Order: sequence, then structure tokens, then C-alpha cells
Amino acid sequence: MSLTVYTGPTGNGRKPTILLNFLNIQHTLHLFPWPTPEIKKDWYLKINPSGLVPSIVDGDITMHESNAILLYLADKYDTDGNVSYIKTIDPTAYWKQVQWLFFQSTQFTNATKMLLSNKHTKTTDEHTLARTYSALEKVYSVLEDQLSKNKFINGEKFTIVDIAFICGHFRMLERVRGTEYEIKNFAEKYPDFNQWYTTSIAIKEVKKGLEKVAAAT
Amino acid sequence: MSLTVYTGPTGNGRKPTILLNFLNIQHTLHLFPWPTPEIKKDWYLKINPSGLVPSIVDGDITMHESNAILLYLADKYDTDGNVSYIKTIDPTAYWKQVQWLFFQSTQFTNATKMLLSNKHTKTTDEHTLARTYSALEKVYSVLEDQLSKNKFINGEKFTIVDIAFICGHFRMLERVRGTEYEIKNFAEKYPDFNQWYTTSIAIKEVKKGLEKVAAAT
Repeated sequence: MSLTVYTGPTGNGRKPTILLNFLNIQHTLHLFPWPTPEIKKDWYLKINPSGLVPSIVDGDITMHESNAILLYLADKYDTDGNVSYIKTIDPTAYWKQVQWLFFQSTQFTNATKMLLSNKHTKTTDEHTLARTYSALEKVYSVLEDQLSKNKFINGEKFTIVDIAFICGHFRMLERVRGTEYEIKNFAEKYPDFNQWYTTSIAIKEVKKGLEKVAAAT
Repeated sequence: MSLTVYTGPTGNGRKPTILLNFLNIQHTLHLFPWPTPEIKKDWYLKINPSGLVPSIVDGDITMHESNAILLYLADKYDTDGNVSYIKTIDPTAYWKQVQWLFFQSTQFTNATKMLLSNKHTKTTDEHTLARTYSALEKVYSVLEDQLSKNKFINGEKFTIVDIAFICGHFRMLERVRGTEYEIKNFAEKYPDFNQWYTTSIAIKEVKKGLEKVAAAT
């Protein structure tokens, strides 16, 4: 039985890399140089039919979808609950953890994708820009509210939920920082989020995870 | 301890309604007339800060995100595994269940949303249309491949994974059927998906769930 993680330096690709830094487990990290045609080849499409990263193979289990992978790895290898809430110990926090991971992969990702798409198409259409900033305001306000009440997104503990949002936010910044598409006055509008992000990316395991994958670009 | 489900006739809103038809449990169904300003009011935003449906309150647990809710309800109330795979009994199928629910909420929803957005903006831009059909082809091909090998999306059993995709596909059809945005030759391109969908929407509990919520429109 051995765990192999296939990944690369994308928003979602960094998630398992960071989590693995918190888990003291044997694994093979298959870090693709980026971009790579490998992920569209037959051998990889058998692991991940969408041709995306990340994916894992762990004995009988083959999985794609980054937040599903976070839940799986935490369930199997974070049995002391160092970076996750455990269902049998704290069911309420566990189910909120599942909820926030879905929120990250759906609403949060949709809003940040709209921004990246605007930059890509160089849109100046006011209606499109207004819709994008409204979607961003909606998701960052929800997170700001959480972080005004809790040290981390899902409570007083740093967890896989934080990892998911760090990677999404990092990805967005990486693409738009210093451009006209950057969200204006971010730190003033979302001070608690900003504080949480600054603190979180300084955590040794997070920092190393972001650097490690970045090094492959 | 009592379960209340807040929902409406949206793609995601129908998911818990259908699942509840399979579960013989006491609950209160709070079915909003649609559209409704209620979901943007303070009382509801405390339950679901995004102001969307569905949401649930079950004792101490308040949750949003439709596929997270499917996982929660199945875990708590489908203890015999009638419409879900159970982690302790079949871990491989359980984790694939989690993976497919994320795939539905991310890649599948993104592709169908692009189509609905094209219809909404009445776009005739060839590049946009080509990108949309390519995204749709990608997700429906993945599902077609699954359904060429299995009776249902995640194996030989009808589960919450099927419920999630039925609702997404139903929503898409509801909006584009008979319009120029409809996916051409769908049944010929994806015969196994088409067969699965036809069979699935005829299941008594599914049919009733789609009708029940539709009646609120």
C-alpha cells in the first residue's frame, strides 16, 4: 500500500502538497513540470479523466477533485485531528468543514475565476466588471464575517479548510496583483481575512508547500 | 432535535427534496415560493450567508452547500446505505462518492452554467460558444464513460451521486430545451448517459421530488 500524489503549481494543485507537509506519512510526490502535456495522456487520464491536477492513488483508491482529496487524506492520515476536525469527535465542526470545502470549490472559485477570466479577456465591459466585483464581495464578506468571529475559517484550529482557501486566494493574487484587475483596498475592506492570510502563509508547512510547488514552474 | 430543510425549485434546491423522498424521516420542508426575497433577509442569511438554497438546520448543525447536505443527510439518516455508500462498509465507493459530488459541483456545474450564461446573454460569439461546447463535451464524456461501465454513476447502486447529477442535468434541460442553445444530438453522443437519465427520472422518489419542487414555481 503506497500513496502517490500527482500535482502541479495550480490553485488546486498546491492543496495536497501543503497538507502533506503537516502529515508525517510516506508518499511519492509526482510533481509535474508546468505546464505539461502529460496530464492529457492516456496513462494519466485513467487516474484523472478530466486531465487536471491534483489526483492521488492510494492502494485501491484513485481520486481526483482537490477538496475531496483533502477530506480523504485527513480522514485517513490525520487521525489525531491536527489539521482537521474528526467526525466522531466533533460532528458539528466536521460537517461545517465539509460545507466550507464545498463553498471554496464552488462559490469562492467561481468568483475568483470570473476575475481571472476578465484579466484574460482584458474586458472593459462595465456590466461584466460589476458582476465580478459583486461576486467577489459576496464571498469575501462571508469569509470576513467568519474570521471576525474565529481565529481560522472553521473555528479556533488551522485546518484543511484554511488550506483550501489559502490556495485559492494565493492563486488569485499571483495572477492579478499589481494589475488593474486587483481588488482595490483589499486589506481595508477585509481586515480579518487579510490578517488570517498573512498569518497563515507564514506557517512553516504552508510556506514550504507554496514554495515547493512554485519551484516546479 | 428536528430537521428543517429550506429549499426551492433550483438545480441545487431539488437535491435534498429528492433525497428526503428516499429517507423515511420526520422533517419540516420549508419550500420557498420562487423567486423569493426571503432568502436575502437577515433571518435566512444567518442560516445561509450566501442567500441561496438549499440549507438545513438539524439540531446543532446548520449547513449550506447542496452536495455537503446530501453527504450529511446520507451519513446520518441513510444508515442502511439504501441510496449512498457507507464509509465503514465500502471505503473505496464512499470516497469515490465524495469525489463525484465535488466533480458535480465544480466541473459539471461550471460547464452547464456557461451554457445558461450564453443563453442569457444571447451570445453569438463563436469563441465563447466553442469553449462552452468543449467544456460540456468534456464533462458529459467523463460521465458517459462511467455509465458505459456501471449502471449508475458511482457503481451498481442508485445513490446521492445520481441525485446530484440528475438535478444539474434537469436544470440545464429546463432552461435550454427547444432553444438554439440545446446540445445537439445529445442522445446519440451520450447514449448511456441518456439511458441512465431516462431510467432515473422515472424512479418514483425522483419523479415526485422534481414535481414537488416544480409545483412551487
